[in-house]
Amino acid sequence: MEKTWRWYGPKDAVTLSDVRQTDATGVVTALHHIPNGEVWSVEEISKRQAECESAGLYWSIVESVPVHEDIRRGLDTRDGWIDKYCETIRNLAECGVDMICYNFMPALDWTRTDLDWPLPNGGTALRYDADAVAAFDMWVLERPGAEADHTPERVASARTWFDGATADEIDRVTRTLLAGLPGSEESYTVEEFREALAAYDGQTHESMRGNLKYFLERIILVAEEVGVRMAIHPDDPPFDLFGIPRVVSTMADAQWLLDAVPSPANGLTLCVGSYGVRADNDVVEMARRFADRIYFSHLRSTRREEDPESFHEAVHIDGDIDIVGVVRELVKEERRRGDEGPRISVRSDHGHRLLDDLTRDSTPGYPLIGRMKGLAEVRGVELAVNRGLDGDLA
Amino acid sequence: MEKTWRWYGPKDAVTLSDVRQTDATGVVTALHHIPNGEVWSVEEISKRQAECESAGLYWSIVESVPVHEDIRRGLDTRDGWIDKYCETIRNLAECGVDMICYNFMPALDWTRTDLDWPLPNGGTALRYDADAVAAFDMWVLERPGAEADHTPERVASARTWFDGATADEIDRVTRTLLAGLPGSEESYTVEEFREALAAYDGQTHESMRGNLKYFLERIILVAEEVGVRMAIHPDDPPFDLFGIPRVVSTMADAQWLLDAVPSPANGLTLCVGSYGVRADNDVVEMARRFADRIYFSHLRSTRREEDPESFHEAVHIDGDIDIVGVVRELVKEERRRGDEGPRISVRSDHGHRLLDDLTRDSTPGYPLIGRMKGLAEVRGVELAVNRGLDGDLA
Repeated sequence: MEKTWRWYGPKDAVTLSDVRQTDATGVVTALHHIPNGEVWSVEEISKRQAECESAGLYWSIVESVPVHEDIRRGLDTRDGWIDKYCETIRNLAECGVDMICYNFMPALDWTRTDLDWPLPNGGTALRYDADAVAAFDMWVLERPGAEADHTPERVASARTWFDGATADEIDRVTRTLLAGLPGSEESYTVEEFREALAAYDGQTHESMRGNLKYFLERIILVAEEVGVRMAIHPDDPPFDLFGIPRVVSTMADAQWLLDAVPSPANGLTLCVGSYGVRADNDVVEMARRFADRIYFSHLRSTRREEDPESFHEAVHIDGDIDIVGVVRELVKEERRRGDEGPRISVRSDHGHRLLDDLTRDSTPGYPLIGRMKGLAEVRGVELAVNRGLDGDLA
Repeated sequence: MEKTWRWYGPKDAVTLSDVRQTDATGVVTALHHIPNGEVWSVEEISKRQAECESAGLYWSIVESVPVHEDIRRGLDTRDGWIDKYCETIRNLAECGVDMICYNFMPALDWTRTDLDWPLPNGGTALRYDADAVAAFDMWVLERPGAEADHTPERVASARTWFDGATADEIDRVTRTLLAGLPGSEESYTVEEFREALAAYDGQTHESMRGNLKYFLERIILVAEEVGVRMAIHPDDPPFDLFGIPRVVSTMADAQWLLDAVPSPANGLTLCVGSYGVRADNDVVEMARRFADRIYFSHLRSTRREEDPESFHEAVHIDGDIDIVGVVRELVKEERRRGDEGPRISVRSDHGHRLLDDLTRDSTPGYPLIGRMKGLAEVRGVELAVNRGLDGDLA
């Protein structure tokens, strides 16, 4: 498995010189300075490539080329945005960047309520508190119909959370939800967020799948033609939020997507941390079933809490997710593909803030030391898994 | 395997609060402030224990209770020092510290020539340059008979090194060799070192084995009586230095030692990085053969250079040493022992200086981040090895 490292570009507090010390060889990055939907020129792509190469690394994967909201919403204007997306794919291919991770999360990208949740060992982790999100939905955002979207139990427990929370806590959750986490390209005020959500009024899982398929049918043709693999990232968290349907949350969703456009260019990013938040997603089975269409994997672990819709980021090899089982399937697939087949790239993700991370500016979820630790754990697992597959661990 | 962390006490640049974030649970430490050979009182032991416990950790292993030079030299005065050693064992047992790592390296403890050898990735590593050591031996120390102890090829290549080295380089090597590395309790001037070596004049491997056996026959009785396990650390590097015989360097040495006093209290620290410097030490075979007498293991890796007597510290899972094979044997043994048997403790060792390690005072070989990375790699290996032994990696 190729080891990669997500880098947010020249403004990232983590430098490429740091990255070289983590044992990653490939860079995962995006041109965040280009407005959503606009074409990435060959010139801009080459410039970022040169930055990576001058540090002894290379640009392995784009994460992400953002999908314009008009595409997700299925508006008439989408064709123009899709044309631009296709041009970006062609330009990346021209530069030799052959893998693109993207997602189809409407309005809001990945979502957490706590960015520095204290761990017993002194580090901190990201956390998602289902009560805090529901309380925000009902009593801060005051989204029409919000109460009906939650179970009576959730309404009650969210009420308890809300009544017990200080104004500061509610404000912190609000800011965390609306500010957008790294890699998401949107941030909102409460009013703007209401509007962004309202724009999805009337959308169903079926209509959102239709919008995704429309997009895929056009981009995958181009990707296939120019030799680029598209690897869709799942919803994080993998369930509907704020009443908007999400359609890349489950094993059935992934199966639907692969069947919808049955091209090798239409592949998956197996983010086991995202899929694995749902107890009904068997990520090892997904790795096995979808193996030949998996090109990229985010290897991390989450742990569901007493409230099973709340979770926090766990130690990479010590959460709800069977990382050994997943790596076993990925390594098996890598062996099947052989040297001629497409590579499987992995990265660690959402590391804990540990040690010097705690006293340095840290992109939420992307601390240097915590991620290096996660990658080291995964590298150890991979080494032993390879030996196991050689029959050398009996 | 219990994960442990070597800590040099309150003056260590790494704090116990740091250690808690590495996923280690046990502390490996010693009372370095007590002069070599003197008794460690219950009071002083308890004080160190309380420090560990106040940080949510516990004192798992002593590394090391130093062995007085008179014992190693087999002087008449040794009995008094052995009595004191036994009293320290009793006091440790009284406090519940039940494992002691120690070594029998004469005059000089572990030895390197470079403490910050630049790695291609920007980090640094410890290194042992056989030419630099030989040159120091012959032309700085001017040890009588030194040339006869080296092969003609070594004399020639050391000459080349010496003639090419700047005065600063020679001075750096001299200081590095004489200053004593962390955990060694001696440091010398050139003149003092000459005297320390001369004190071993006439010793042979046979006489040194005799001195070790004399010591073991006395301390193991006490250790057995009070329930302490002694775990001898091998010579580092595992060959004679400066004409003095070393007797814990090879598989045959370890076998001799275990046979010399066949008590379960007479055990090994399997420092795979030390033994593994010799290509003729098969450390996996050692882990298998000596499994029931291994209580502690230092899991790191070294890499022999073009000159096979020179080496540097490698990435823990990417050197000459088969860490997966060693962990497999240790985990198998752990399973054989079951919950009732003695634990197997491990620690990472001699990490690279990486990232923030590079800008902070760092005990040579004992940087915070590099060691945490090594421990993470080993933890990943262990997790997958356990699955392999469960038949779950086919």
